[in-house]
Amino acid sequence: MVGNPSTETKDMAMSETTTTSPIGCHGLVFSGNVDEQGIAEAVARTEKAGFDLLEIPLLDPFGFDVAAAKRALAAHDVQVTASLGLPEGADISTGDPEQVQRGEKVLQRVLEVMSDLESRHVCGVLYGMLKKYPAPATDAGRAASQEVLARIGRRATELGITVSLEIVNRYESNMFNTATGALAFLDEIGEDALKAHLDTYHMNIEESDMFLPVLAAAQAGRLGYVHIGESHRGYLGTGTVDFDSFFRALHHVGYDGPITFESFSTAVVDDVLSTSLAIWRNLWKDGDDLAAHANAYIRGALRSNETLEMH
Amino acid sequence: MVGNPSTETKDMAMSETTTTSPIGCHGLVFSGNVDEQGIAEAVARTEKAGFDLLEIPLLDPFGFDVAAAKRALAAHDVQVTASLGLPEGADISTGDPEQVQRGEKVLQRVLEVMSDLESRHVCGVLYGMLKKYPAPATDAGRAASQEVLARIGRRATELGITVSLEIVNRYESNMFNTATGALAFLDEIGEDALKAHLDTYHMNIEESDMFLPVLAAAQAGRLGYVHIGESHRGYLGTGTVDFDSFFRALHHVGYDGPITFESFSTAVVDDVLSTSLAIWRNLWKDGDDLAAHANAYIRGALRSNETLEMH
Amino acid sequence: MVGNPSTETKDMAMSETTTTSPIGCHGLVFSGNVDEQGIAEAVARTEKAGFDLLEIPLLDPFGFDVAAAKRALAAHDVQVTASLGLPEGADISTGDPEQVQRGEKVLQRVLEVMSDLESRHVCGVLYGMLKKYPAPATDAGRAASQEVLARIGRRATELGITVSLEIVNRYESNMFNTATGALAFLDEIGEDALKAHLDTYHMNIEESDMFLPVLAAAQAGRLGYVHIGESHRGYLGTGTVDFDSFFRALHHVGYDGPITFESFSTAVVDDVLSTSLAIWRNLWKDGDDLAAHANAYIRGALRSNETLEMH
Amino acid sequence: MVGNPSTETKDMAMSETTTTSPIGCHGLVFSGNVDEQGIAEAVARTEKAGFDLLEIPLLDPFGFDVAAAKRALAAHDVQVTASLGLPEGADISTGDPEQVQRGEKVLQRVLEVMSDLESRHVCGVLYGMLKKYPAPATDAGRAASQEVLARIGRRATELGITVSLEIVNRYESNMFNTATGALAFLDEIGEDALKAHLDTYHMNIEESDMFLPVLAAAQAGRLGYVHIGESHRGYLGTGTVDFDSFFRALHHVGYDGPITFESFSTAVVDDVLSTSLAIWRNLWKDGDDLAAHANAYIRGALRSNETLEMH
Repeated sequence: MVGNPSTETKDMAMSETTTTSPIGCHGLVFSGNVDEQGIAEAVARTEKAGFDLLEIPLLDPFGFDVAAAKRALAAHDVQVTASLGLPEGADISTGDPEQVQRGEKVLQRVLEVMSDLESRHVCGVLYGMLKKYPAPATDAGRAASQEVLARIGRRATELGITVSLEIVNRYESNMFNTATGALAFLDEIGEDALKAHLDTYHMNIEESDMFLPVLAAAQAGRLGYVHIGESHRGYLGTGTVDFDSFFRALHHVGYDGPITFESFSTAVVDDVLSTSLAIWRNLWKDGDDLAAHANAYIRGALRSNETLEMH
Repeated sequence: MVGNPSTETKDMAMSETTTTSPIGCHGLVFSGNVDEQGIAEAVARTEKAGFDLLEIPLLDPFGFDVAAAKRALAAHDVQVTASLGLPEGADISTGDPEQVQRGEKVLQRVLEVMSDLESRHVCGVLYGMLKKYPAPATDAGRAASQEVLARIGRRATELGITVSLEIVNRYESNMFNTATGALAFLDEIGEDALKAHLDTYHMNIEESDMFLPVLAAAQAGRLGYVHIGESHRGYLGTGTVDFDSFFRALHHVGYDGPITFESFSTAVVDDVLSTSLAIWRNLWKDGDDLAAHANAYIRGALRSNETLEMH
Repeated sequence: MVGNPSTETKDMAMSETTTTSPIGCHGLVFSGNVDEQGIAEAVARTEKAGFDLLEIPLLDPFGFDVAAAKRALAAHDVQVTASLGLPEGADISTGDPEQVQRGEKVLQRVLEVMSDLESRHVCGVLYGMLKKYPAPATDAGRAASQEVLARIGRRATELGITVSLEIVNRYESNMFNTATGALAFLDEIGEDALKAHLDTYHMNIEESDMFLPVLAAAQAGRLGYVHIGESHRGYLGTGTVDFDSFFRALHHVGYDGPITFESFSTAVVDDVLSTSLAIWRNLWKDGDDLAAHANAYIRGALRSNETLEMH
Repeated sequence: MVGNPSTETKDMAMSETTTTSPIGCHGLVFSGNVDEQGIAEAVARTEKAGFDLLEIPLLDPFGFDVAAAKRALAAHDVQVTASLGLPEGADISTGDPEQVQRGEKVLQRVLEVMSDLESRHVCGVLYGMLKKYPAPATDAGRAASQEVLARIGRRATELGITVSLEIVNRYESNMFNTATGALAFLDEIGEDALKAHLDTYHMNIEESDMFLPVLAAAQAGRLGYVHIGESHRGYLGTGTVDFDSFFRALHHVGYDGPITFESFSTAVVDDVLSTSLAIWRNLWKDGDDLAAHANAYIRGALRSNETLEMH
């Protein structure tokens, strides 16, 4: 009766959105690794789902084969960005000199890799590890993290890359969990290339609502990157996130940076990340369907908000 | 940068939804009249937007040219339904014998017309006029309306048509404004072919929430028809309606009847209806874009709810 | 088991809110008339419910007995404001010279009465009638309304009264139905004493959300008055209004004007108003309970928003 | 201008709610320990805030002094319940025989303690530890947990105590994170005294919405206990939890068990629990104000839902 949406939407006359935000997808929707074959698959399926952009989980920038990635990307009109949390032993927020040194090298390497791939955006938990910390952040750790990031910010400026610090929930970082906290952290550093990275999954846990954090980050000139994730990391619209308010806020502030869909399932696994993120459930099996749905969802929300001008 | 969604979504691999609900659109999104040319245009654009079904505003069933409509429909794989409010002078809820007689003739004619068009659904404010009443409904008017509808229900059973009474807000009817009220009204009649017609635009004004009315109507075996309208009748997602709860509820009860998008703007006008509905603003200009957006929105919501089985 | 909340809340140590907004209640929650006895009853019960302010429905300012009202108010520590729609035959938005003249007299009289009662706020549909109009507003009618209001604004400035134009839904006015529309209307007049009056009941029907209109009115320096009403005009929390967003927005802009609860039921009736507002249902029987609940609801929302400073 | 709500609400005539749910508060709102002085303080402040019930964090039932607790409770008309997660070394979900034995002893001791205190409810993460697990639950661990709980359920039946398993988010347990998961777990055990314990804080992260889990648990006859917590564990109404839907659902299913407010801040600390729960922020300073606010919030929501009968 209903038929196949993929057929029925072929003739859609939905107007071109006027936003300049590239709409993207996190690589783990498609592939658990980032070798040439993994990148090639991820980028092909990213494009097939209708996205403009692939966000590469660059957890190991030293093991990442740039030339292979370039080959994998060559055939496709897809931009790339990278996201990561600092690896074990390279946690700059410990303040431990060895870890600080290792962490800075990781971040510097990430910048070089992404510059080689002509990316304009690096994001994630770049100020520490993405894990459940056993204690609050310390002043010394905070200062160490900020010192490294100040240098990273200066290098990013040289490379024309925006570095956005992801604001994650209490179980994934102890440094800050809200836009207010992140903006204070960023203000103390004072580098223009460093921005805040809002993620709806985390906002749903830590923020008062989905509107004020966008407003605050935009008014500070520091809204650099956006993740769209459902409350349980499954299909958009099957959880509790108030996406209406979030997209209204993005429209209100005229955000034009990347908007990337992120979802995790036991269907596609990175051993480290799946455990850090506590992915025990399988909320989807078919990454292509999930991605096509997310792409339509995000573009539909952006399109409808454009019509507010007529209200 | 973002490009044209109509192009980018062509290759979407979004899975076929398993719901059997036909997804439709109200004719006034496309055309202000229902002559052969009007129907032809509406049905072509309904199909182009991706819908399965056109809801014809059958405000004047005697003036409606069935043969012309058949010709207009012939070339398209689009189902039809009809909706209306009773016309001036045919308000069966007045209890006035002449009006009651006229109103019943209108309703009988609507059934015959739609049977000829092989439609299975007639809906709307069939129990009175769609207008701002100056006083509460009377017992006598209610009884007269119910007597007529009992006969209409029996005829509908013969024709295999479901007749769904639309629940509208206080400014558009004084008979009932909630599912609870409608179900009581229907129980008093007791005809199986008569059902309740829920409309999110009206529910947003009159109901406690978007979940319980669906549950109540379904549990009574009387959820017959569904209208999807935004709080101000514009683009879906630009108003205050809690569509997430509504689609969750439809999924929960396993609703498989028609789901029809309804929107009104000063861009497309029926003189009587636009005034009854107080359409002073223009919330869209391009009906094709509006419709394609609504079709994708509704199908996306149905699709994501199907994945709840995995939760 | 649960016991009586009125007892149990006696010892509450809930902190004093720091907002300076007076919290009020519309008179029709308590009494269908505004004679001395009606005012006396309304003000006593307003105070008993915990409010600071009574909003008097001043539908007939010429028939209103100021001296009697003063006697009724004398014994209570309750502020007053007034709200109204223009009466039949005094609709300045018709542009009809006689009606314009009568309407202006009504408005002037309202100002004098409220000045006598030491009120600082007059609000409502002061730019026309509160009714379902049969056609869009005309340019001439709009201009006539604005000319009158310009003079009213100047007189209001002299008296130190803020005159706030209520933004109501499509079925209650054809002049404007959104904050955007009202602010444009007010800008064309350009009088400082004239402000916008937001009402959550109407916003829920006409606005995109509950946040942006507050922001827009506040940024224009024109947020003058606020009505808190549920989507169906019943108990707060039993409808679809997103009060969380609305109170968040009020807090964000630092609103400190009146916040008045409004609810209508067939339990307390004003013949004209009940019909204009299409009050067919009885959503409450006990105005005192309704009012005490609303007072606690509003103060609780303001109090919790104050704690956002700690976030 | 606004004055002190604690004064102004004294004369409230808000009707007695007809629900039989006792309304309670978690002890950590008031005190970081449960010795005689800690209990005495908690119970006095629980009562002062208007609650019926104190939920004692019974993390160490062997170290708990029942006689002292009885003395502390004697002077107050406050019921008690207990909540806990299994302690380190007593995690029955490991399947390790020693831990299983220790865990069962803890649970048996909890039942005896609470029976002595005439409590009817024990709840929490009784099937494992409340912590971020490094890997998914194992079948053997699940079976071991269920075997212990079957015996606990039988003992609970003898004592007339309901034992409710709290459904927590992915970062606090790997056993189940949704009502669907918990009900399957409970069905496999099949003991009547074992129920599901819903917590809005966790539901906001893991469930599709706030309505369906209540419906599912109630329809299974297994809704035993309810926690009311905001999305960030701060003041009710300052986060993203859709409490309207949750209280609507509780009303719809006629829930009459305990409803307990839970909030955590760095202002009051239990060393183990604060770290397990990743409490890095201070969202409130004054536990009495927080508690009084929550009590009014919960009772207001229950009261307004009762008026739905009139709709």
